[in-house]
Amino acid sequence: MNRHAVYHRPKSNYCFAYDNDKVYIRLRAAKGDVDKSILIYGDKYDWNKNKKIAMKLTCCDKDFDYYTAVIKPPNNRLSYYFTLESGEEKYHYTEWGVFKKLKEDEIPNHLFNFPYINNIDIHRVPEWTKDAIFYLIFPERFNNGDSSINPKNVKAWGGKPKRDNYFGGDLKGITEKLDYLNQLGVNAIYMTPIFKANTNHKYDTTDYMEIDPCFGDKDTLKKLVKEAHKREIKVILDAVFNHCGYLFKPFQDVVEKGKNSKYYDWFYIRKWPLEKKPPSYEAFAFEAHMPKLNTENPELKEYILNVAKYWIEEAHIDGWRLDVANEIDHQFWRDFRKVVKAAKEDAFIIGEIWHDSLPWLMGDQFDSIMNYPVTNACIQYFAYNNINHTEFKELINNIRMRYTKQVNEVVFNLLDSHDTSRFLTKCGGDTKKLMLASGFMLTLPGAPCIYYGTEIGMEGNDDPDCRKPMDWDEDNWDNDLFNFYKSLIALRKEHIALRRGSFKWIDIDSDVISYIREFEDEKILILINNSDESKSVKLDDDVNSLIDLLNHEVITLDKKNLNLMLNSHDIKILSI
Amino acid sequence: MNRHAVYHRPKSNYCFAYDNDKVYIRLRAAKGDVDKSILIYGDKYDWNKNKKIAMKLTCCDKDFDYYTAVIKPPNNRLSYYFTLESGEEKYHYTEWGVFKKLKEDEIPNHLFNFPYINNIDIHRVPEWTKDAIFYLIFPERFNNGDSSINPKNVKAWGGKPKRDNYFGGDLKGITEKLDYLNQLGVNAIYMTPIFKANTNHKYDTTDYMEIDPCFGDKDTLKKLVKEAHKREIKVILDAVFNHCGYLFKPFQDVVEKGKNSKYYDWFYIRKWPLEKKPPSYEAFAFEAHMPKLNTENPELKEYILNVAKYWIEEAHIDGWRLDVANEIDHQFWRDFRKVVKAAKEDAFIIGEIWHDSLPWLMGDQFDSIMNYPVTNACIQYFAYNNINHTEFKELINNIRMRYTKQVNEVVFNLLDSHDTSRFLTKCGGDTKKLMLASGFMLTLPGAPCIYYGTEIGMEGNDDPDCRKPMDWDEDNWDNDLFNFYKSLIALRKEHIALRRGSFKWIDIDSDVISYIREFEDEKILILINNSDESKSVKLDDDVNSLIDLLNHEVITLDKKNLNLMLNSHDIKILSI
Repeated sequence: MNRHAVYHRPKSNYCFAYDNDKVYIRLRAAKGDVDKSILIYGDKYDWNKNKKIAMKLTCCDKDFDYYTAVIKPPNNRLSYYFTLESGEEKYHYTEWGVFKKLKEDEIPNHLFNFPYINNIDIHRVPEWTKDAIFYLIFPERFNNGDSSINPKNVKAWGGKPKRDNYFGGDLKGITEKLDYLNQLGVNAIYMTPIFKANTNHKYDTTDYMEIDPCFGDKDTLKKLVKEAHKREIKVILDAVFNHCGYLFKPFQDVVEKGKNSKYYDWFYIRKWPLEKKPPSYEAFAFEAHMPKLNTENPELKEYILNVAKYWIEEAHIDGWRLDVANEIDHQFWRDFRKVVKAAKEDAFIIGEIWHDSLPWLMGDQFDSIMNYPVTNACIQYFAYNNINHTEFKELINNIRMRYTKQVNEVVFNLLDSHDTSRFLTKCGGDTKKLMLASGFMLTLPGAPCIYYGTEIGMEGNDDPDCRKPMDWDEDNWDNDLFNFYKSLIALRKEHIALRRGSFKWIDIDSDVISYIREFEDEKILILINNSDESKSVKLDDDVNSLIDLLNHEVITLDKKNLNLMLNSHDIKILSI
Repeated sequence: MNRHAVYHRPKSNYCFAYDNDKVYIRLRAAKGDVDKSILIYGDKYDWNKNKKIAMKLTCCDKDFDYYTAVIKPPNNRLSYYFTLESGEEKYHYTEWGVFKKLKEDEIPNHLFNFPYINNIDIHRVPEWTKDAIFYLIFPERFNNGDSSINPKNVKAWGGKPKRDNYFGGDLKGITEKLDYLNQLGVNAIYMTPIFKANTNHKYDTTDYMEIDPCFGDKDTLKKLVKEAHKREIKVILDAVFNHCGYLFKPFQDVVEKGKNSKYYDWFYIRKWPLEKKPPSYEAFAFEAHMPKLNTENPELKEYILNVAKYWIEEAHIDGWRLDVANEIDHQFWRDFRKVVKAAKEDAFIIGEIWHDSLPWLMGDQFDSIMNYPVTNACIQYFAYNNINHTEFKELINNIRMRYTKQVNEVVFNLLDSHDTSRFLTKCGGDTKKLMLASGFMLTLPGAPCIYYGTEIGMEGNDDPDCRKPMDWDEDNWDNDLFNFYKSLIALRKEHIALRRGSFKWIDIDSDVISYIREFEDEKILILINNSDESKSVKLDDDVNSLIDLLNHEVITLDKKNLNLMLNSHDIKILSI
C-alpha cells in the first residue's frame, strides 16, 4: 500500500458537518490501492465505546480514490482514526500518520477530532439555490427597453461589440424579457454590474448607490425585481467591491487633495501626486481606471456593507455575486455574510474565484463559487475532445472532492460567461457538442447557469466578442438547441432527483459517460455519447423498463438483450 | 518518484503570509524521494514574467520531506506551481495534481494561488510572547498568603491532594512569591481559573465577575497584576467559556423556572425538569456539574465577551488561556479575538487544544495553543526512552510543520500541567531526564511553560496527585535542578537566538540530538545526549572555538580532533 498517498484533515473538505446530526468523513488513498477502509470513531470522553464502520469508495480522480463515511457523532463529539487493508497489509492512520501498529494506550492522544458540532458553524446554503437554474445577463447587451436613456453614440443592435462601444441594453429591456426567461424556464438571473460606471461592462463603479442612468434608475430595478419575483425568478446582482472606478467620488477626492482627503485610506496610495502609467496606487490587474479599495478601512468597509444591505432592502434582490472575491480580505467577507444574511436570511452569496476555493467555502464566507474548473473540464471533453471519458470523470470527481457536500449542491456551474469565449465557439459551432455539455451541466448537482444567448446558439470569441447583443430575431435562432434547453430545464424542474438527488457514475462497458441521480424513489440515468460513433450500452440486469424523458418514449428492454443504442453525440435522460 | 505523496494547499500551513512582504510556501514529498523542488511563481495578471526558485529541504518527519520557499509576491499577488525532479524523472505539480507534462496554455488555469496579501488577514502574534517564558500556577496549591480567607476544612500545607480537598492557596500568596518567580527568571504567569466556583480547580465557574472569595477579591487580583507588571511579568487568566458551574445563577434560574427562564437558551437543555444522572442537558465530558454554555445565544455571547473585556480593562491582565477551546464555535472565537485585541492590542490568546489545531490558528482566532503533542514527544523520548533520536526529531518536525511560522514562534510548549502527571514522575524520578527535556524545551522556538514546582523537583501522578501544594521548604528542593532551570531561563533571556532564532537540526554521526538556533550573528549549538553512555560528537570543520554557556567555559578544539565529549544524559548549550 502506498501509505504516503493517504490523506485526511479534519475541518476541511475531508471532514465537515452537513447538519446538526451528520459529519462527513472522507479519506484519500492511492487509486486502486486499498481493499478496505474502516473508520473507528467515538466520543473522546468515552472512547472505550468506539464503533467501527466500513467506508464507501465514493469516487476516484487521476491518482486517488476517495472513501466516505457519514457519522452521527455520539453527543455531538467525534474522535476517530482509520484502518486500511490492502492485500495482506494492514495500516492505521491517525493524526500522527500511517502506522503498522498502534499502541493501545497512545490511541486517545493520536485521534483525529471533529471536536463538537456547533450549529452556528454549519454551512447552510439557501434552500432555493438547490433548485435554482441561473441565467447570466450582461445588461448592456440583453435588450434595449428604453431608448430614451441610450448612451451617446449607441450602435445599432446586432453590431460588432468592441471594448468601448454601446448598444443600449437596459433594465427595462430585461423586464420586458422576463416572460421569455419564464418560457425558457430559468428561475434566477445573475446580472453583471448595473451601478453607475464609465464602461459598458460597469466594473468600474463610480456610484454604488445609483443605477447607471443608461440602464435605468432605482425604480426600474425595483420593477425588474418585482416582476421577476412575480414569475418566481430570483435576482442576483454583481458586487464589485475589490475596486472602484477612477471617477468614484472618494477616489477623485484623493486625486484632488492627496493626504488631506478623508478618503485617502480608502485606497492603497503608493505615491502622490498620483500617476496612471503604471498606477501609483494598487489597482485591479494593473488597470489604472480600477483603483483597489482598502476593505480594511473601517469607514470604507461600513460604506460597502451598507451598499450590500441597501440593495437587498431597497430593491429586494436575492443575493450577490462577488467580483474578484479572492483578492479581498477574509474578515471583510465574514462581516459581509453576516450583514447580507441579516438583511435576507436566504440571500445567496457566490464568489468569483476561478481556482480551488475551500478557504472561502467553509460556512463563514460564501455559499458558492463560479465553478470555472468544471467549465474547463467541459471544454476539454465536449468542445475540444482533448481528454477521454475517464479523464473527464476524474476531473469532475477531483473538483467535487475539493468541497463539502453542501457546496457541491449549489456550486455555480457554467459553460461560458462574459469573461470567456462562448462554449459554442469553442465547439467550432457544433451545437451537438454544446447540447451534450449543457445536458451534462443541467443534470449535474449544483446550480447551473446559462449565459444569455447560449440557448439560441449565439457565438463569440473572448471579450469583447462574447458580449454581442442578444439576437431577438427568432429566424436566426437554432430552434433545436433552444427547444433542447427548454426541455432540459423543464426536466430539471420536474424531477427532484436531477436537482437534489445523489450523484453516482455508472461504469459501463463503453466510453459513454453514464451516471445516476437518485432522490428517494426517483432514479434517473443519464447517458452521454461524446463520440462520432454510435454506441451500444449494456444496462444492468435489474433494468427492464425506462422512460426517455427527453422524448417521452417508453423503452422496454428484452431480458436477453439489455443493450441500448446511442447515436453519435447523443444524450439520453432516462427514468428508471 | 512517489507522486501520490506530494501535497500542498494554499491558505493553510502549506502557504501563508508571514508579514506584508513574505509568503511561505511549503511542499510535502515522500522522504528522500525528490532531488530538486522548484517553485515557479508570478503575478497571475502578468504570468509571462514568472520566476523560478529552488526550494530548500527544511526538515522531514517519519514519512515525508518538507521543502520551503519564502516569496515576496510581485504586486501582493502570488500564483505558482512546482516542478519536482527525481533522478531521470521530472514532474509538475499544480492545483490539478502531479503531471509529467503541462500544456503551456493550460498553466494559468491550473496554478495554485495566494490571491492577495491582505494585511488584516495576516496572523500577527504579540511581540512579547516571542520572548515569554511562562509559569503555570494552580492557585489553590501555590501559596497561602491570607489565611483569613481559607476555605473550610483546609488541610495542612503539604498534605495529600484529593479531588475535593483544599489547602488554602490564594492570590496574595502568588503576589508574595513574585520575587521568587523573578529569581527563577520567568516573565509570564498563566493561572488556572480564579473566578468564583465550587471546586478546588474552579473550572465550574459560578460567577465570572467575581474572584473566588477563597482566592481574594478584585483588589487582590489587581495588586497581583500590578506587582507582576512591576517585575516585567505578564499575567494570563484561564477563560472557562465552554461550560459553567451547576450553581452559575443563570443555570440555577433554568433549574428553577425551566422554559420560563430567560436564560433557558444560554444552555443546551434536552429535557426538563432537569436530570443529573446522566445530565439531561449538554455538559462538559458528561460532568453534570459543568453545563455547557450555548455560545451561539447572543445574550450569553455578549455576557461572556464582556467578561473577557472586563478583566483586561479592570485588572490589566495580558491575555487568556481558553479552556476546552475546540468545543466552542469558531464564530464565537472570531468575535472573542476582536473584543480582546480591541481591549489590549498585544493580549495573548492561547487555546487548550490537544490535537492538530490549524483551524483555530490561521490568524482569525487564537495566537497559540497548548502544545501537548510536543509534551507527548518529550515523554516518549526523554522520560520513557520509547523512541530513538531520529523518531523524536521526526515527531518534532511533524508538529512544527502543522502550523505557520508565526504560530511556531509562540506555541505554548510544556512538559506537564495540572492536567497531566508530572514529567519527573514520568521519568521515574530521574532528574537527569527532566533536565534534558527542560533543556530541550527552553532552547526550542515557542513560548515554553514551566508547571509550578517542576523546577524544584516536585513529583506527582495524574490529577489530583499532580496538584500538590508547592513545597516552599528549600531543604526539600533539588537545588541542582533549580539552578539548572535558573541557568536555562537566564540563557534564553540573554540570547535572542534561543528565543527568536531560526531552528535547524544538525545531523551528526551519533545519536546525540543536535540543533542550531541562529539570529543575525548569534549562533548557538545545542547538543543533548539522551542515553546512558557518554558520546563523542564530531563537530564541523569551521568550528574551533565554543563557549559552553551553561558553565561559561571556553572550549578550544584541536583542528585535528573536532570531537567533543558528552557524558550520559548531558546537555550542552554552546555559543559558536
